[in-house]
Amino acid sequence: MSTALIVGVGDGLSASLARKLAARGMKLVLAARKVDKLEALAAETNGVTVSCDAANGEDVEALFGRTDEMGGDLEVVIYNPSSRVRGPFVDVDPGEVQKALQVTAFGAFLVAQQGARRMLPRGKGTILFTGASAGVKGYPQSASFAMGKFALRGLAQSMARELHPKGIHVGHVVIDGAIRNPGRTEPADKPHSMLDPDAIAETYMQLIDQDRSAWSWEVEVRPWVETF
Amino acid sequence: MSTALIVGVGDGLSASLARKLAARGMKLVLAARKVDKLEALAAETNGVTVSCDAANGEDVEALFGRTDEMGGDLEVVIYNPSSRVRGPFVDVDPGEVQKALQVTAFGAFLVAQQGARRMLPRGKGTILFTGASAGVKGYPQSASFAMGKFALRGLAQSMARELHPKGIHVGHVVIDGAIRNPGRTEPADKPHSMLDPDAIAETYMQLIDQDRSAWSWEVEVRPWVETF
Amino acid sequence: MSTALIVGVGDGLSASLARKLAARGMKLVLAARKVDKLEALAAETNGVTVSCDAANGEDVEALFGRTDEMGGDLEVVIYNPSSRVRGPFVDVDPGEVQKALQVTAFGAFLVAQQGARRMLPRGKGTILFTGASAGVKGYPQSASFAMGKFALRGLAQSMARELHPKGIHVGHVVIDGAIRNPGRTEPADKPHSMLDPDAIAETYMQLIDQDRSAWSWEVEVRPWVETF
Amino acid sequence: MSTALIVGVGDGLSASLARKLAARGMKLVLAARKVDKLEALAAETNGVTVSCDAANGEDVEALFGRTDEMGGDLEVVIYNPSSRVRGPFVDVDPGEVQKALQVTAFGAFLVAQQGARRMLPRGKGTILFTGASAGVKGYPQSASFAMGKFALRGLAQSMARELHPKGIHVGHVVIDGAIRNPGRTEPADKPHSMLDPDAIAETYMQLIDQDRSAWSWEVEVRPWVETF
Repeated sequence: MSTALIVGVGDGLSASLARKLAARGMKLVLAARKVDKLEALAAETNGVTVSCDAANGEDVEALFGRTDEMGGDLEVVIYNPSSRVRGPFVDVDPGEVQKALQVTAFGAFLVAQQGARRMLPRGKGTILFTGASAGVKGYPQSASFAMGKFALRGLAQSMARELHPKGIHVGHVVIDGAIRNPGRTEPADKPHSMLDPDAIAETYMQLIDQDRSAWSWEVEVRPWVETF
Repeated sequence: MSTALIVGVGDGLSASLARKLAARGMKLVLAARKVDKLEALAAETNGVTVSCDAANGEDVEALFGRTDEMGGDLEVVIYNPSSRVRGPFVDVDPGEVQKALQVTAFGAFLVAQQGARRMLPRGKGTILFTGASAGVKGYPQSASFAMGKFALRGLAQSMARELHPKGIHVGHVVIDGAIRNPGRTEPADKPHSMLDPDAIAETYMQLIDQDRSAWSWEVEVRPWVETF
Repeated sequence: MSTALIVGVGDGLSASLARKLAARGMKLVLAARKVDKLEALAAETNGVTVSCDAANGEDVEALFGRTDEMGGDLEVVIYNPSSRVRGPFVDVDPGEVQKALQVTAFGAFLVAQQGARRMLPRGKGTILFTGASAGVKGYPQSASFAMGKFALRGLAQSMARELHPKGIHVGHVVIDGAIRNPGRTEPADKPHSMLDPDAIAETYMQLIDQDRSAWSWEVEVRPWVETF
Repeated sequence: MSTALIVGVGDGLSASLARKLAARGMKLVLAARKVDKLEALAAETNGVTVSCDAANGEDVEALFGRTDEMGGDLEVVIYNPSSRVRGPFVDVDPGEVQKALQVTAFGAFLVAQQGARRMLPRGKGTILFTGASAGVKGYPQSASFAMGKFALRGLAQSMARELHPKGIHVGHVVIDGAIRNPGRTEPADKPHSMLDPDAIAETYMQLIDQDRSAWSWEVEVRPWVETF
């Protein structure tokens, strides 16, 4: 049996990911800071939920301990969480910047390291990070997001160079645009102008399926009408 | 009926592409400078072959005239050709540099423009370019390849920004490593160390299938053991 | 009178920077975790030293309080500190990763924010960050350095986009190679194969001197024989 | 005596470059397609003018033959020319695209190769290319400019990797914004919103002066108020 762990589960992209992975017969672990809203998704995908602050080392160890108990091979780890604050640079609360680094980047390290430890002995597995255009371009009034997502991309690239030759596929998905999460409505005159969570999740599945002779470490996705 | 045009057809990646597109029921046009070696592939994929120098405007017009005669909607255009020469910078034959620019970049423009003209009225279609790591990194002793593939990438990026909002998906695939073409053998101790043409072609198919709410304009693929 | 603040002062690049700024008649504030080794430099450049943990908000506020007491306009702020650890990804101590993010990136934010607050009212000033090739390329076995320096680059880029139009010049210097610090010896057969601190510092001075009609936000410097 | 060659001389940036190089006591060769407008500049800088189509191999050989006749060491070569056309992708005249590749990229190769041949024996010299933001970002309706300037950047990067270790400094200057050439007026409410030719030229001089232990291969310059 194969296990997949998704960290930072909400009702948009991660729910699509959960459904697609469950449809492949994978056993799911769904982690988030607050899991009470995840019960319906867990029931639908036959997954278990674990409450976890991804930036907290003990929480992450407990999360992987719980995952280990499920048995099976950990095949897929996906990391989504991020934190940010917007506003004039001189007014940003330093505590928010620290939180952004912790949640967006340090938590990704903690989760990826635990995941890699389980995948290395088998020389197999996929670790995917949810990036953003903020990770390749630093926007004004958004230093905390730039810092967190740039750091995440640096982590993913360093891991790819080190772990690809050991059989672990590391991928960084640059999402450029707004996701059409439940409750968000597209402008009527601009169909498909927001990223469909199922469409993004399809790209994640393709990364998971890639033959190791032709791995991508980074893919960017954006709506057809998005300027870049 | 849908038509797909592949320019620069050999026996490796483009043959894999042809088979996958034919398997989808698309009508194929296979173009190359010399088509005599393509008869078996054409027969297998039920495609037609057209002899064409992609850097020659009249040839390209004739190629698209022939494609138009097939009827059906032109859904996919793929451009593969490149030319290059290696050696110390001061010794490179200028004629080879000019040829590299013509074949790798100018031919891509000619083909893409004819393709876009046919796709625009329907607001639909996919144009894919076969790039290389030389298009993102200029290697020593390889100025002609860098010039051609950088120019190709510039073309693809400019087209993506202009044509995505018009419904035409433009993709640039960065192939980083050697392709396991027929006749090439991998080191026995390094399985999957060369890019499997079928695996690369799979990524092309995924680009063709992407939902327009989540298009990629660039994807890179490399073997798991390739340094980068 | 003009003031310049250098954070993360040692005996290599930052000493060169201090000497060049002092030679322009600027009043210097030299900050480092440990300042006892800075006395000779402070005496030579007529600067004051301040002990400061750059990742500590209170320390940074005290540092700028001390700088304010000097009077004069704060014209230049330079941020050097970084922290990192090398080794197999799965063995890295998470505490070292956190420290790397704090020292390399969060401290840069704290210092830059305080600096920008003082420069904005005058619409004038230069803030420079010492980056590394690790900030544009994530190397294997070096995730913590990649994370910190990528985050630093994201900070610098976000600040440049926001603060350039307000008259504050933000620059990110990518140092690619080893610096010929005191005590380090170059291979005899490879002259100038290590970056001369004075040569790097010269590039910092040029950034400070640039006319605002033609500002650079990023410059990379590397020895002539360095591969890249 | 030292000689400097500037190819693509007009009345803006290249005139500033000529004046600065002449002020250093260098003997100047000023090349352009049409040289009749260069007489005043030539007189002022004590330079010689040579009529030259940079994309024509024979012209370029003749240009360097004339330069050789001047005697002295060829220390600096600067390449400025570019060609482009704007408009909807499907309407662009292929002849203009070909011309763009020839003038912007192939001419740069021809000139750089001749220059490198003269510099290599001495292991010394600087070759600078005038790039544009179009060389790092492909803008819509501007494929020909993207193709030419991307190719130029690929050339410069390949040359830098090959020739830096041989003592020849290769630089690519990304000019992002409009140059305040003679006759162009800035908006009254936006001082310094166009690049001052003298300010850009200053950056070229700094590249020429860099110590080989700390060379830059690329520098970008843009007005403080330019968005990027």
